[in-house]
Amino acid sequence: DKALARAEIRQGVREIVLCKDGNGKLGIFTQSIDKGVFVTLVYKGSSAALAGLRFGDQILQINGESVAGWSVDKTISFLKKADGARITMAIRDRPFDRTVTVVKDSNNIIGFTFTNGTIDAIVKDSSAARNGLLINHQVVEVNGQNVVGLPDQELLQIFRESPRSVTLTIMPSFIYDYLVKKISAKDLKKMMDRAIPEL
Amino acid sequence: DKALARAEIRQGVREIVLCKDGNGKLGIFTQSIDKGVFVTLVYKGSSAALAGLRFGDQILQINGESVAGWSVDKTISFLKKADGARITMAIRDRPFDRTVTVVKDSNNIIGFTFTNGTIDAIVKDSSAARNGLLINHQVVEVNGQNVVGLPDQELLQIFRESPRSVTLTIMPSFIYDYLVKKISAKDLKKMMDRAIPEL
Repeated sequence: DKALARAEIRQGVREIVLCKDGNGKLGIFTQSIDKGVFVTLVYKGSSAALAGLRFGDQILQINGESVAGWSVDKTISFLKKADGARITMAIRDRPFDRTVTVVKDSNNIIGFTFTNGTIDAIVKDSSAARNGLLINHQVVEVNGQNVVGLPDQELLQIFRESPRSVTLTIMPSFIYDYLVKKISAKDLKKMMDRAIPEL
Repeated sequence: DKALARAEIRQGVREIVLCKDGNGKLGIFTQSIDKGVFVTLVYKGSSAALAGLRFGDQILQINGESVAGWSVDKTISFLKKADGARITMAIRDRPFDRTVTVVKDSNNIIGFTFTNGTIDAIVKDSSAARNGLLINHQVVEVNGQNVVGLPDQELLQIFRESPRSVTLTIMPSFIYDYLVKKISAKDLKKMMDRAIPEL
């Protein structure tokens, strides 16, 4: 199943290499939580997007330096000073995310309701209920494709057009809300990379 | 690595079969959160322990009935009425948990501090820092073995005696605190099954 493979959260740590664009940008926003540095916005078409960074990825090291405990300001200033030709990062794959696969019923219904992308009710006897989907969780990817910041109507359309089996990537709302609190709704919606991950 | 295999959080849903003991007990406590039913205490030597249930497992179905949205009371009363000779459950493996492997340094130091099992500081330049271990997370297993409710001194002893590579199973503190809030510290410490999971 390609959707499942695109959504799969991989164990371990991966290395990526980035370079700054003509304006000196990598194309990411970060937020710091629990002494970890997390990717909260990946600009479409940016160097970060091309390197496969995703919303929710944890940055562990930049150019060999451990970033544990770094604030957003410290992260930005370190990246600003770094040589743009080659920046290496060690990345842990979306640690706060997990995936749940549900199957739409014969009426093309997914089995849960959501508001601003947050799951707020589970339909009785639905596939979502049987698979233990939880409320108070944010839908951040559908079949591995980023949906963060999309209006509910667009998210609903994505569910309607999905194959019957739908793999959701979800994250507890209280963490999601913290990660995006500094980003405007407009930027989240317009700027976020939503390319289909390569396999 | 056996420790890593014992800690591994498996995707998908597994079926288990349980029977009540001579006192009509399965040997579990549950807590309900976000419309899901979670295992919060597995009595050592109980039918539930023998069936491989673990702290943090999500119960999806009991005897074919979906438990989505069930309260603790409803779950208990359903289990009380169920025929003790054969109870089937569909289980999702510890959805709120994830694993991080750290390596102790040459002084046998693990690289973080904890209070009541909650990680509260990461040591600079340690393996914990490099691997992105987070504060505000509860250590629930060490090398796949349950440590929920153990006093800090006993947990420290387990770290001291562990092989150099230590696989931690962690859960955000705010979820952990909610899951165990109805269980006395004494019960958590004394009753919990801490058998080494079979591979």
